[in-house]
Amino acid sequence: MSESKPDLEKLRQNIDQIDQQIQDMINKRASYAQQVADVKQESASDGEKAVFYRPEREAQVLRKVMNRNQGPLDNESMARLFREIMSVCLALEEPMNIAYLGPEGTFTQAAAQKHFGHAVKTSPLATIDEVFREVESGSAHYGVVPVENSTEGMVNTTLDSFIHSTLTICGEVELRIHHNLLVGSNTRQESITRIYSHQQSLAQCRQWLDAHYPNADRVAVSSNSEAARRLQSEWNAAAIAGEVAAEIYDLQKLATNIEDNPHNTTRFLIVGREHVPASGEDKTSVIVSMKNKPGALYELLAPFYDAGIMLTRVETRPSRDGTWTYLFFIDFEGHESDAQIKGAMGRVEQIAVYLKKLGSYPKAVL
Amino acid sequence: MSESKPDLEKLRQNIDQIDQQIQDMINKRASYAQQVADVKQESASDGEKAVFYRPEREAQVLRKVMNRNQGPLDNESMARLFREIMSVCLALEEPMNIAYLGPEGTFTQAAAQKHFGHAVKTSPLATIDEVFREVESGSAHYGVVPVENSTEGMVNTTLDSFIHSTLTICGEVELRIHHNLLVGSNTRQESITRIYSHQQSLAQCRQWLDAHYPNADRVAVSSNSEAARRLQSEWNAAAIAGEVAAEIYDLQKLATNIEDNPHNTTRFLIVGREHVPASGEDKTSVIVSMKNKPGALYELLAPFYDAGIMLTRVETRPSRDGTWTYLFFIDFEGHESDAQIKGAMGRVEQIAVYLKKLGSYPKAVL
Repeated sequence: MSESKPDLEKLRQNIDQIDQQIQDMINKRASYAQQVADVKQESASDGEKAVFYRPEREAQVLRKVMNRNQGPLDNESMARLFREIMSVCLALEEPMNIAYLGPEGTFTQAAAQKHFGHAVKTSPLATIDEVFREVESGSAHYGVVPVENSTEGMVNTTLDSFIHSTLTICGEVELRIHHNLLVGSNTRQESITRIYSHQQSLAQCRQWLDAHYPNADRVAVSSNSEAARRLQSEWNAAAIAGEVAAEIYDLQKLATNIEDNPHNTTRFLIVGREHVPASGEDKTSVIVSMKNKPGALYELLAPFYDAGIMLTRVETRPSRDGTWTYLFFIDFEGHESDAQIKGAMGRVEQIAVYLKKLGSYPKAVL
Repeated sequence: MSESKPDLEKLRQNIDQIDQQIQDMINKRASYAQQVADVKQESASDGEKAVFYRPEREAQVLRKVMNRNQGPLDNESMARLFREIMSVCLALEEPMNIAYLGPEGTFTQAAAQKHFGHAVKTSPLATIDEVFREVESGSAHYGVVPVENSTEGMVNTTLDSFIHSTLTICGEVELRIHHNLLVGSNTRQESITRIYSHQQSLAQCRQWLDAHYPNADRVAVSSNSEAARRLQSEWNAAAIAGEVAAEIYDLQKLATNIEDNPHNTTRFLIVGREHVPASGEDKTSVIVSMKNKPGALYELLAPFYDAGIMLTRVETRPSRDGTWTYLFFIDFEGHESDAQIKGAMGRVEQIAVYLKKLGSYPKAVL
């Protein structure tokens, strides 16, 4: 034991030296970032506010970090550190305010901090519409809203918000989601007759519930947090919710990872006011309205097929304002500035009743 | 505008280069940290678990970071980045579980993440006693509990928990705390007859309440979050709580920073199972019981005075188990391994009914 002491001492000296170098370079990076901001401010027109946060540039930096990473830190941990470094450098120029669908402690907050780092102010709002309004009014720089779940499909409120909004999509975030069956300390586990959760979570655990609680009522409430909270006053109910809600309300996990699909991920969108230039690996989202006639979708997809564009998602929604049209939400790979996408969009415009481009944005990096 | 373009391009290349260097060095740091862990594991006795997290060492690293910092990043931002870097390097060896006084979104959680970074798992618990038990049982590596508020004094439950616990104090965290008067969208602001908050927060805003709401009832509830939650169903009440609660419950701030003392800080303690070696700038906490006779405190303080030891806090509590003794909680500067502190402790032991050393730990860095 005693002969290892000098080794420890030496290792710690090495760490101290390297810490000093890391620190010098982070400060050097921050001063370069300041110079970038100065150049941007100078080249902005009079009265116009320069835009300091560049989503496409951040995505490129993070991709480089992950591609060249040699370990021992894993790619994700390293990318998260760089997210924080960029977050702190940016805060030096422009402290950002991010609105998200609350309450605090939800997956959407986790998505916001995964995307923007911790040197931003995050503001929870009660509804998806409020998040949109907060960004439209300029009170928040960006908004974060859930949009798609791999088991349950699209979050309809978010899609509907896009129809009437001027906002553009600036990014996407993906989170792996787990569900648990929670009970309180006073729950009689043999008498569970009611299971609370958000409608989506109930749907995500349908098979498991059919197998284990076929006779319990499934009651949809506003959020998984709310479901967990209700258990405090009911002895014959359980809730489906995540880790965080279990911790907040001090509940016990009767069963873990009960989601039917083990790759259950939720996708979130970043909404903002500015269009994002190409980052090299991008996605584009559009809303298209077609006359409701046989072969409408087939006709719509032809321009994408012919141009070799990869569709990542097609979602159909009945239009609210007329019975004879359908709305399609389409995500595909590529940026709206790409030549083949411009071409395909031109063809879609000719056959569609209505085409709304929701934006091009970097594919989720982490 | 066009001539600034090449500048931007050049600056970004510089940033990319420096990012690569930062990344290489963070990975080098992580591999040194792994070697440190290997040395520790080898030198641990058979069956004994090596201790990878060293509070005194982390404090030393952060102090160095702040002392040598040249900017443009401020000392605190830089120290927080290094906290995250250390947090990630440590997680490579030993993923840590930190218990804290919940619920999620409280100041205690903020304190836990300020102290341990984000690469740890934090578990909110309902009471201070539960936090102690979770650490005593080994389910959590460390616990975080509030202990002292600059306006309101000590948090008595935490002090009482120490009397019967085997845990030792491993660190302290300080947070600046602001309070707001919050109302809901349905509150009639002219008819506020009741103000909810935690007892401490009510006390911290006493003068302001006397001046502005002299006739409103002040109702103490379990937490500021709970106070905010109650407003949802009451139109003639307000709540005192922080930013976070306002956001969670979507409340409006009728008045901000209403705390009587503008330097209102809350101090938190980190509790653990291992004693912490000296870091160079340390504090020590003890509990002393004295016979209740005239001059008892004066007599107790003499050994500290004679040894030139700086007391940072003395708190008196009536002993629960006998009417003729008093308990003193004393914090002072220095480490229990220092010669003059050993000497003073020896003298205290001779005159006291009971002396319990709660631990020596690094002074709060950030």
